[in-house]
Amino acid sequence: MSDALTELRRELAQITDLRTAGRVLEWDQLVMMPHGGAATRGDHLATVLRLAHELFVREEIGALIEEASSQLDGAGPESDDACLVAVAQRDWEKARRVPADLQADMTKLASEAVEAWTVARAENDYASFRPWLDRTLELKQQYVACFPGTDDPYDALLDDFERGMRTDEVRRAFDRLEPALRDLVAATEPEEDEGFLTGPYPESVQHELSVAVVRAFGAEDRFFRLDSTVHPFCTSFSTQDVRLTTRYSEDDLHASSIFSTMHEAGHGLYERGGDASLDRSPLATGCSSALHESQSRLWENVIGRSLPFWRWFYPRFQEAFGVLADVPLETFHRAINRPRPSLIRVDADETTYGLHIILRFGLEQELLFGGLDTNDLPERWDDRMEELVGIRPPDDRRGVLQDVHWAGGLFGYFPTYQLGNVLSVQIWERLLVDLPDAYEQIERGSFGEIYEWLRERLYRHGRKFTPSETILRVAGGPIDPEPYLRYLADKNASLAAA
Amino acid sequence: MSDALTELRRELAQITDLRTAGRVLEWDQLVMMPHGGAATRGDHLATVLRLAHELFVREEIGALIEEASSQLDGAGPESDDACLVAVAQRDWEKARRVPADLQADMTKLASEAVEAWTVARAENDYASFRPWLDRTLELKQQYVACFPGTDDPYDALLDDFERGMRTDEVRRAFDRLEPALRDLVAATEPEEDEGFLTGPYPESVQHELSVAVVRAFGAEDRFFRLDSTVHPFCTSFSTQDVRLTTRYSEDDLHASSIFSTMHEAGHGLYERGGDASLDRSPLATGCSSALHESQSRLWENVIGRSLPFWRWFYPRFQEAFGVLADVPLETFHRAINRPRPSLIRVDADETTYGLHIILRFGLEQELLFGGLDTNDLPERWDDRMEELVGIRPPDDRRGVLQDVHWAGGLFGYFPTYQLGNVLSVQIWERLLVDLPDAYEQIERGSFGEIYEWLRERLYRHGRKFTPSETILRVAGGPIDPEPYLRYLADKNASLAAA
Repeated sequence: MSDALTELRRELAQITDLRTAGRVLEWDQLVMMPHGGAATRGDHLATVLRLAHELFVREEIGALIEEASSQLDGAGPESDDACLVAVAQRDWEKARRVPADLQADMTKLASEAVEAWTVARAENDYASFRPWLDRTLELKQQYVACFPGTDDPYDALLDDFERGMRTDEVRRAFDRLEPALRDLVAATEPEEDEGFLTGPYPESVQHELSVAVVRAFGAEDRFFRLDSTVHPFCTSFSTQDVRLTTRYSEDDLHASSIFSTMHEAGHGLYERGGDASLDRSPLATGCSSALHESQSRLWENVIGRSLPFWRWFYPRFQEAFGVLADVPLETFHRAINRPRPSLIRVDADETTYGLHIILRFGLEQELLFGGLDTNDLPERWDDRMEELVGIRPPDDRRGVLQDVHWAGGLFGYFPTYQLGNVLSVQIWERLLVDLPDAYEQIERGSFGEIYEWLRERLYRHGRKFTPSETILRVAGGPIDPEPYLRYLADKNASLAAA
Repeated sequence: MSDALTELRRELAQITDLRTAGRVLEWDQLVMMPHGGAATRGDHLATVLRLAHELFVREEIGALIEEASSQLDGAGPESDDACLVAVAQRDWEKARRVPADLQADMTKLASEAVEAWTVARAENDYASFRPWLDRTLELKQQYVACFPGTDDPYDALLDDFERGMRTDEVRRAFDRLEPALRDLVAATEPEEDEGFLTGPYPESVQHELSVAVVRAFGAEDRFFRLDSTVHPFCTSFSTQDVRLTTRYSEDDLHASSIFSTMHEAGHGLYERGGDASLDRSPLATGCSSALHESQSRLWENVIGRSLPFWRWFYPRFQEAFGVLADVPLETFHRAINRPRPSLIRVDADETTYGLHIILRFGLEQELLFGGLDTNDLPERWDDRMEELVGIRPPDDRRGVLQDVHWAGGLFGYFPTYQLGNVLSVQIWERLLVDLPDAYEQIERGSFGEIYEWLRERLYRHGRKFTPSETILRVAGGPIDPEPYLRYLADKNASLAAA
């Protein structure tokens, strides 16, 4: 290893440590911090991330990258060293485009705006949140302006989460999905009597069962924590320290912890499965948001809503919740899968979910680049919801205030959720080629080989390769909505036939 | 405000933010982190603290301090600005005396030595810990050598915790305390039947009651958290984000959460009571270790073991724990106060506690400057214990291996515990002059005026003034053991008479 490479690794480790410290501050804020802490937490976080940014964008780092790059002679293009230099170079060039002050302003604003959103949502008070959203949009536009020359201004936002992805590609996929998903939702059968959906599902029992499931998936206690938050999420501080959160609803099975925990565990297993040698480097963590989401969706939906999964787990589940005593497995399975028009994205069934994303993808562009005034946003949201899903939110809490993302400045993020859904099925189809008995394994509650296949093909590589390279490796081809649409059509047909 | 002052404030805020982030990492590690996280957490923390140190010791900071100092014209010596400049100057000069390598060696050694101590204590194996202690003493001597010209080499260590305090002052106070405390312990009455001390005290009930007490003290939910750890502690990330921890023993009332929670709440109320304007500056947090300990002891002992306190709280406590059903208030009060010779410092009663500290204060000096060989330390410890307290440890676990401090490099810290005890009574006597009905208020469960008095005289000033100036303000005079000895004698006499 050349001296420049050693020095570059050391510098990047230090910068990665600071960013990790920032994630600890964020996790603490969302999971543990007393409300009063918000007064200064935004400043702490802004300082830590600003220093990480300042340390990274120095000329010296660029020189080290260049020198290390010229000394890579022996290293193959797939080696950790070559990938590190390539990723560092791209990140460095991108980071240098954003002024440190703007970066710090965005960080601080996000922290404060999330607090404002939390209150606004609880009180169904969009007006109190609107100034925060306006300011966020303003900074986001300044951010976009740092990246001139893209085909579409939205490309700059998308690139933060899906390196190299173009808005145009997303639009094409979504244009294919929108009518197909609307048809599938419209074809929904009328509901059976599914009174059991409203519980009661006592929180402590949900917790115990959620832990049991994710342990079976491979989330070991000495590397994972599970806590409770309003908005479930996953973060990690190393491959050996992964934090999941979930939420509990005692009177709505769809919003119970079981699905959100499997979802976040999917993210967590991806983080956990990275090669430990990538820790403290920019190659640690998943490759892209869509690939990350493909794993949360794979574990939550493709596995966690499948009939084989529930053949394994339903006896225990049924015994734990008295309300299910007389509910047959097939009825239960139908209830957790049937498309039903829904107002809340995170509670949506697999089919409706995509329509929620398509709504947000459009509105983000209208807000940032299409002149949509935030005063008109709630109505525009409700109109689009009615158009896409066929129902109208009765209040903003169940409409425009439901997601934290915009408060947190995460524009460009939503589309990756639906790309993740699409990818989850592409990857699963490939896995079935290698593990044709995967469903039998699931039915036995055995997830080790599935995890190992995913780790080998995807998790261990971290951020070494670009998203499109990585997708090619794990899914065998570029993003393609067809397998996903077939999967949904088959599943819905099987539910209707049952 | 001058430009230099503005700039200095900004720089110091940034450095303080990094140190705060370090405290969040430490809190998380002790309270929340899965075990696996230890693999990288030390690196994260080392990076954050090293950066804070590097940013602080720059020449630019010295220049800013000098410039700001010359521009303070209008500001009175008690103004935030003048105090900030004075404290920054002193901290800066001190920080620059210690070579970065020595600082790093000490940090690294402390983390390894604490690991070695943990194993050694568990296995009662002093010999395995001795090389770590030798190395720690060696580095500590190098550290002391960075501060030539003190009256006593121990002054340099004391100064880390008690700015400006001289060894001579401590020795004088301890020389007065030692014979008096020995007499008090020797006069101990034989114990009654106090079988109720071993419980059971169910953890969940302890938790609920501990929370109730510290809420009554003024620890509001939106500014405080209470968690569980092996070794209770308190930290804070701002005046509005204070973290307490406690521990639960179901079969030992002395080791139950109620006293450790009151103790940590005392520290926490001090942190909470700082002026919010001091947040994100080196003036935030308590003035010194002894003043901090004076507050933990005041709330835990002076208030929390008083008869008026238990007149208020005992009915609820008694009802919650069946084992106390037939135990009269006076018997309970005697049991939680009676001096009893004890081997373990943290379990010691108020009277014996000081003798534990006096033992350590002497041994620290003998080890560092008096030629005591670490081979002879266990025997010297046991001899002194027998001399001071009248009992001899049957093994090193209950002797020289009981405390983590020396493993962690904390020499000079122990004396501040006892100075805190002494100060707690000095401060309380002053408070009684202004609030002559304080005990009646306590008996009503009313703590607001007491907190307010302490906040006004002590808490709000943070680190603005030196310890001796601060002690003068709040206690009306320098450290004086007499009130504390009177308090103990009166209390012990009242217990014996009961």
